[in-house]
Order: sequence, then structure tokens, then C-alpha cells
Amino acid sequence: MADWQREPEGFSCPLPKSDYQEVVLAHGGGGRLSRQLLEEWILPCLENPVLRQLGDSAVLNLEGLRLAFTTDSYTVTPLFFPGGDIGELAVYGTLNDLAVAGAQPRALSLALILEEGLPLETLHRILESIRRAAARLQVPVVTGDTKVVDRGKGDGVYINTAGIGVVPPGRDPGPHRIRPGDHILINGPIGLHGLAILAARQNLFPEETLKSDTGPVGPLIEALYEAGVEIHAMRDPTRGGVASVLNELASQAGVGITLLEQELPVPPEVEGAAELLGLDPLYIANEGKVLIFVAEDQADRALEVLRQHPLGREARDIGRVTEEHPGLVVLHTVIGGRRVVDLLSGEQLPRIC
Amino acid sequence: MADWQREPEGFSCPLPKSDYQEVVLAHGGGGRLSRQLLEEWILPCLENPVLRQLGDSAVLNLEGLRLAFTTDSYTVTPLFFPGGDIGELAVYGTLNDLAVAGAQPRALSLALILEEGLPLETLHRILESIRRAAARLQVPVVTGDTKVVDRGKGDGVYINTAGIGVVPPGRDPGPHRIRPGDHILINGPIGLHGLAILAARQNLFPEETLKSDTGPVGPLIEALYEAGVEIHAMRDPTRGGVASVLNELASQAGVGITLLEQELPVPPEVEGAAELLGLDPLYIANEGKVLIFVAEDQADRALEVLRQHPLGREARDIGRVTEEHPGLVVLHTVIGGRRVVDLLSGEQLPRIC
Repeated sequence: MADWQREPEGFSCPLPKSDYQEVVLAHGGGGRLSRQLLEEWILPCLENPVLRQLGDSAVLNLEGLRLAFTTDSYTVTPLFFPGGDIGELAVYGTLNDLAVAGAQPRALSLALILEEGLPLETLHRILESIRRAAARLQVPVVTGDTKVVDRGKGDGVYINTAGIGVVPPGRDPGPHRIRPGDHILINGPIGLHGLAILAARQNLFPEETLKSDTGPVGPLIEALYEAGVEIHAMRDPTRGGVASVLNELASQAGVGITLLEQELPVPPEVEGAAELLGLDPLYIANEGKVLIFVAEDQADRALEVLRQHPLGREARDIGRVTEEHPGLVVLHTVIGGRRVVDLLSGEQLPRIC
Repeated sequence: MADWQREPEGFSCPLPKSDYQEVVLAHGGGGRLSRQLLEEWILPCLENPVLRQLGDSAVLNLEGLRLAFTTDSYTVTPLFFPGGDIGELAVYGTLNDLAVAGAQPRALSLALILEEGLPLETLHRILESIRRAAARLQVPVVTGDTKVVDRGKGDGVYINTAGIGVVPPGRDPGPHRIRPGDHILINGPIGLHGLAILAARQNLFPEETLKSDTGPVGPLIEALYEAGVEIHAMRDPTRGGVASVLNELASQAGVGITLLEQELPVPPEVEGAAELLGLDPLYIANEGKVLIFVAEDQADRALEVLRQHPLGREARDIGRVTEEHPGLVVLHTVIGGRRVVDLLSGEQLPRIC
């Protein structure tokens, strides 16, 4: 019997026990329930060593070429918001996932799910935005797909982009290289993207008070590599914010993480809006931001390179990796206190991506 | 100024004139309006030589490695239908797009858009189906994404899969290699998938009268290459059916195509159902089917290889490439007539993918 005919060996996917019978919004929020959906429902079913690494990109070895491969769907509402739109988000988001794997992007796919009744002029604006973002980073859209779904479905447009990139020799960032003593850098202020979406959706604040920071991080990461900085790990703190992403990394690397509240770049408009809404900026989604882990003796040099680059002028050194409290992220507050910054069960916001 | 900062040169996307102000279902139907959306709205905006080829996969040269890359979103309703479900469709559909580019698949991405309220048990069944299909072809899912959208959106589950594969040296199928005199082969009966979906959705026929032919074509194509058959071009006749896909190829290759009605493998149950519904099987979507163009002197050998393979037992030689009527597909009917088989404006069915 030919290979393609044989039923695969081994057990079929186990049916996990769950407190939930149905998908809830928090399953997509980047917190504990997202993690549970992934680890209990999806991974046991599709298990393989590459997927198990749960990086922002998979890195494959194809005939000696190290190829990074990633995918993301974009379901943001509204489609246009202060500082950005779903089109550039779909380009930068996926290219940033390649960049934090150390990869240089080579090509994008673009799959559109359009809702019947979407004004073609809206589609045109989104395509223009996609063109502009892809051209800015000189990455071609090489393959695509368009589906149309019935009126009332699909929120106007859903976009999926997948990206492929090449990881140059010598680069191997990842949780496995995180070491106690590492410094954690970020290239700029946090909380802007999530709050801008929320504000645009709810008409909470005067237009343009909060602007999304949607943008690329790849050119910044290339600058670090060119300067010879040895990067231990990188991650973009999107869904679930800085807190959720650092929790994941602490858990994957088996280390503790200390966050220095006084170093956190929280702009006054974010602080004000978050306080008003009872939200913690640490859990708010960002775009165009990257967390970078480097050894202590590289931290100053890395910070200097970041700050000299237009995408990193407001870079900060916000945390340390510790041997203590493995798996936990602990905030050292301005007034000298300490508190555990845990994964949230769902998300603290209405869904924003 | 750094490259990443500079606004791309050249004009922004031109705004086309259109008879439509809004997206309509037919824009996703695989016919004339789909073509128009692609050629007038999307391509001028994202123009580049690889995308312009409009193959089922893009083929890139990365450091000497020929990499095929493709994407498809799956929005089928119902999620489960006689003969298949959205999960295996999402695996086979994308792997088939790699296969018809001559590529051997290496990895899949999986992006789920879940509707709030989807029973987790339904998700589990879909994941099991994805696992089974991917394992059958020994292709790992290496990267993924999950988003949750509000209740009422998303039809339960939308799936996007992207696939990457390697094109072995010496393989270069494509419209540019189609020549007058070529024979056109198909590996089995047409019309089953589209009608099975339609029947399941409308409760038209007793369950199981019509079963989708969802399945892989890669192993069959590998068998042809292993047997030394020189393949000029391949395409899987999914959305828009055999007629639409052959129209595209005739137009891209600048040749005429003759279809032999008496050779078309239309099963009695398809003929009956199509007649009842006033549909033409030539425009009905197929899965697990492939159209193969070979030189005349290779046709018999190719047909023999196909028929010896479990995925091609009912293979037929259904058409010829001609110098006459370039860009047109002409059906030679059983009773000796001739009629042009044109692109439909939209689709003849309610949307099925």
C-alpha cells in the first residue's frame, strides 16, 4: 500500500477536559485561555518539534537554507484607526514575526476574506496601505487568495498574511539562549496600539489623542546585528502585551524575570487613559515594539544602537533575567514593592485584534 | 535617510473604474468578476513579476533553492459535508496548489479564525481531520495563529493555510510550456465536490448520494514525474470548475483549447443533479482533481501511469491544445456541435468555498 493511502499511525487527537464547552472571546486574548487552547487542544493534535517551539516564526532547515515561516490573521475593528489600519498591520505584524526570529524577509502572501457589501473604495484604501508598507520594507507580495463571505459575516475584511524569510548564518535568537543576568530592552513606549484601537472603537477620547504605533521592527534588528550585538532572544509584545509575552518567555526559558517599573516607558497619555479605564498598560497590545534580551555586558552598546535608530529613539532597559522565581515575572515598583505580574485569564480589553 | 524610512517611489495604486461600488459574492466565484477584482484592483497595486504569473503557487529562488509558496483561505459552509470537511479541505487544497507547481511539500501554516460560541468539540473534530490529512502526506504544521471573532461573525470557523515546498531541479510546469498539440488529462470525475456542498447545504438529495472528492493529488503527480513523464502544465480545477481554469490557461498561454464532451468524466449522479438544478458540471468546483498538459507523444504513457495509481483510476484524456481560437475554450459536443465555453460572470451556484 502506498504511503499516501495508509492511515497515519498512533492515536488520534485526545479530547481534553475543559471548563468550557464553547469558544469564548478570551480564547483569542493572548492570556491564560489562549495558552490553554493552544497547549491542550491544538498542540497535542498537531505535535511536532518545530511547532512545539512556539516561536513567532518556525525556522526550518531546507537543503541547508534556514527558512523562517510565519502566519497571522488580522481581524481588527475598526479597519482604520488613528496611526494605522488593518492593511499595514497585516504587513508589519507578519514581517515583525520574521524579524524577531532573526530572519530577513523575502516574501509575503496575502489572503483576503471580504464581506459582501464592502465598498470597493475601502478595499482600495487597504490595498494602498498594504502596498506602501510592503514597499517600505522592500518585500513583495508573491501569492494570494480572495474569498467573499455573506453580508453580516467577516467584519468587512479579514486579512491573513504569511511570510517567509532567510535566517543568516550565526543568528539563533530564542528562549533557549536566555540566561540569568540578561538585560531586557524595549525600543519605545508601550500601550499605544491597544488603547488607540479601543478609543477609536468606543469614541472614548478626542480623535488622535492616542495613536497606534503600528510599524516595522526589522530595520532596527538589522542595525543591532550589523553593530555586532549578540541577541539572546526577541519577541514582539503584541496580543497580551509586555506582561503576557514575558510570562511566556520566562516559562519557556525556565528563568525568572524582573521588571523595573521606573524604567517602563509608559507615555502620559497611555497612563491617563489606562487609569481612567482601569487597565494595566503591561497587558495592552503593542505594535512596532520589540523586547530584546542581551547579556549584561552588551546592554549599554545595544541601547546606544537602538537609540541612534529612528525606530528606537525612546529605547529603554526595562528588566533583568534572574535565577530566582523561575517562570514568574515580578515587577519592582517605583515605591520599592514587588508584585507578580501573572498571565491574565482572558484579556482586559474588548478584543482588539 | 534610511531605506526603511523612505516612502516608496512611483504612483500609489490607481483607482480603477468599476461597474460595482461594492464587493458582491460573484467577486469570489472564480469567474469573470473574480478575474476583474484581481486584475484591476489587486494586481496594479501589488505588481511584481512573481505575483503577475498568477500560478497556484509562487516559485521563488532563495539562495539557489526553488521554493514554492502558496496560500488559501477556506470559508466553506457547512463545515462538515459528505466526503469531507473544512479541515481536510484546508490541508489538501493548499498542498495541491504546491503539487501542481511541481513542488514537494515541506511545511504548512494553520491560521484559525474562530467564532465565539463555536463548540470546542467541533473544533476538535476539525483539528483531528487536519492532523489526519497532514499526517497522510507527511507534512508538518509548523506555525499557526488563532483569533476569535464576535458571535455572529465568521461562520463558525474560517481557516487559512499557507504552504511551502521545494521544486526539484528539472521541473518547470506552467502555462509558458503549453504547446499546440498538447493533450489535456484529468485524473477522475468532475462536479462531485461542488454538488456535494450544495446538496448538504440545501438538503437537496438523500444524504450521501453525492460525496465530495476532497483529497490529495501530490502523490499522483510524483508518480508521473517518477515515470519520466514530461509535464507541460498542471492546474487543479477548484473554484469555477474545469471551464474557468482552462479559460485562464488558454488566455495565459495564448492558445486555444478543445474539450471533447464524450471524454468528460461526468458521473451519472452529477449529471442527474446538475440537470435538475440547471447547472453545468464544467463550472462546478472540484477537489482532488488535476488537469495535466502533456505533449501528444507522452499522453498514452501518462494516462497509463495515472490509471495505475489509486488517485487516478478513472483518468481520462479530455482535450487538446490548438493554434486556432487562441484564448478560447471550445467544446466538441457528443452530437458533433461546437460551443464556446466562456468564463461565467460570477458563479452559477450559491457560494461553496
